[in-house]
Amino acid sequence: MDVVQPIMWSPVGDGVRILDQRELPTRELYRDLRTVDDVYQAIRTLSVRGAPAIGIAGAMGLTLALSDDALDRTQAMSAIAGAAARLKSSRPTAVNLAWAVDRVYRLALRNSGDTRALRECLRDEATRILEEDRAMCRRIGEHGATLIPDGARILTHCNAGALATGGMGTALAAIYVAREQGRTLEVYADETRPLLQGSRLTAWELSRAGIPVTVLVDGAAASLMRDGEIDLCIVGADRIAVNGDAANKIGTYPLAIAAKHHGIPFYVAAPASTFDPSTSTGDEILIEQRDASEVRCGFGAPTAPDGVGVYNPAFDVTPSTLISAIISDRGVHRPPYHFE
Amino acid sequence: MDVVQPIMWSPVGDGVRILDQRELPTRELYRDLRTVDDVYQAIRTLSVRGAPAIGIAGAMGLTLALSDDALDRTQAMSAIAGAAARLKSSRPTAVNLAWAVDRVYRLALRNSGDTRALRECLRDEATRILEEDRAMCRRIGEHGATLIPDGARILTHCNAGALATGGMGTALAAIYVAREQGRTLEVYADETRPLLQGSRLTAWELSRAGIPVTVLVDGAAASLMRDGEIDLCIVGADRIAVNGDAANKIGTYPLAIAAKHHGIPFYVAAPASTFDPSTSTGDEILIEQRDASEVRCGFGAPTAPDGVGVYNPAFDVTPSTLISAIISDRGVHRPPYHFE
Repeated sequence: MDVVQPIMWSPVGDGVRILDQRELPTRELYRDLRTVDDVYQAIRTLSVRGAPAIGIAGAMGLTLALSDDALDRTQAMSAIAGAAARLKSSRPTAVNLAWAVDRVYRLALRNSGDTRALRECLRDEATRILEEDRAMCRRIGEHGATLIPDGARILTHCNAGALATGGMGTALAAIYVAREQGRTLEVYADETRPLLQGSRLTAWELSRAGIPVTVLVDGAAASLMRDGEIDLCIVGADRIAVNGDAANKIGTYPLAIAAKHHGIPFYVAAPASTFDPSTSTGDEILIEQRDASEVRCGFGAPTAPDGVGVYNPAFDVTPSTLISAIISDRGVHRPPYHFE
Repeated sequence: MDVVQPIMWSPVGDGVRILDQRELPTRELYRDLRTVDDVYQAIRTLSVRGAPAIGIAGAMGLTLALSDDALDRTQAMSAIAGAAARLKSSRPTAVNLAWAVDRVYRLALRNSGDTRALRECLRDEATRILEEDRAMCRRIGEHGATLIPDGARILTHCNAGALATGGMGTALAAIYVAREQGRTLEVYADETRPLLQGSRLTAWELSRAGIPVTVLVDGAAASLMRDGEIDLCIVGADRIAVNGDAANKIGTYPLAIAAKHHGIPFYVAAPASTFDPSTSTGDEILIEQRDASEVRCGFGAPTAPDGVGVYNPAFDVTPSTLISAIISDRGVHRPPYHFE
């Protein structure tokens, strides 16, 4: 299967090469990010998106703070501290962005080499994060595939696929592995307003991998469920509280309510790094409000009149009572959940 | 209050003047439809939309089949029969399009005058349908306003407003009348993918009438409910079965499920002409599938890759068990429903 890889080191010079996801599905365009600010902007504008990919980009991006070998120790540590804070602020809800950046940053604090040695050390650590993510996706996929029967018609929301990670994704990894294992599958992808990650990204990467996919507006998913056309739902998560409440792309929560209403299993797949021991329940999760322009004129033309208010939360919280199982690289977790 | 009027006779010559709703919210553009085919296309392409307005447009449009006084009786009756069939086929799910067209058509069958007299007779009947609709909207509004408390925060979907009728709307009529009666209100309008009638039309007409309105993507409504920000939902309907199951714009059904989940009243407001005695339950309602391009590239740019499937139903069916009350010009109907 041809699963896309959206993030890697630039082949030439210091830099992080990304597939610019804002250009999909029209163009497969790769860009080399050469500065911390390039990476900050790429995360902020969703050129890189998906919780694990954001973490990898943050970790790789932190090394770019040290591109100048002439920095002395104090300057290097100051540059890294500033870059870590800035990178973590690019998407405040994404817990494993902070996790990955802090992991590289903590290593820097312990390293006593010169700037060049420090940069190599951080670069190795960021590479490990990328490779661990790839292995982690595979494990999530293998655990998740056990929940996907032959012939399954699967509904997903947003993009929790290869485009969101360093590997084959989280929710979509389960689909890729089930397919590798020879099962026949069909995927329905919510388009996922406002930024259409479902139609632009999920449909693109599944289609590229040869998996049949049908796109629908978010409000049409419940009709498919009512007509008996959906066997299970599987989505990703950006943060999972100790009790299993899961923050994910806006529109996930009503999907979970509809799945419950129709008696359809609703699965969340995410790396264990998404579990946040400092968050007891979903009520504590800060929901980022994104720019009104995404709703008001997200397609180049005005779609709402001037002067009206816009409510545009990036995420919603699905309470654990609506989640049939949570799939992580550690296994399939069933309720009652308790993640630490 | 300045409530817009989207359909009227052309001031000069035979014709139906419509506000072209595809141009909103950017331009307030009126067009004169001079032929049956103009009216057919206007309904088909959603330049005129909303169940009652479609009925009025159909009834008024039928008179355009007789623009040529030289037609003899046989030719005139043949022209009307053909026009009635064509107009009714423009939106097969809209029951009161058929109702309004048939009402005018039946009158033609009984009229024995020449073509000019016949045309005047039909024109008078179409005018009565428009005026009755205006009065009916007012009655729906007065009944519906009894369900709207002072300070209410109201969620609506699609556009069941003045832009959908000959008068002040159906769902929005309740809001307009409650406001006229001095209550403070706040409206949240689902943008309503794929064609964005909520952000383009509902937000536009409410804002024009001075009612505070906030737009959101369809998937964000459940988050507002969970946060305790919604006191009631009110939507329109295109067809209501004998048992109270209601067909309305795609995305209504998941909203009703979410409202039930949160214990929030969910109201449907529609003229009694929307009650379809020949449809026992929602299962019998034919759901029109609309063009894939609305989902695939509805905003001038490709939003899904080539080659993927698209599921694009125009409507969904909300079962009566999820509807707290149905408001018509006859009153407020509570379950168990039985419409004949």
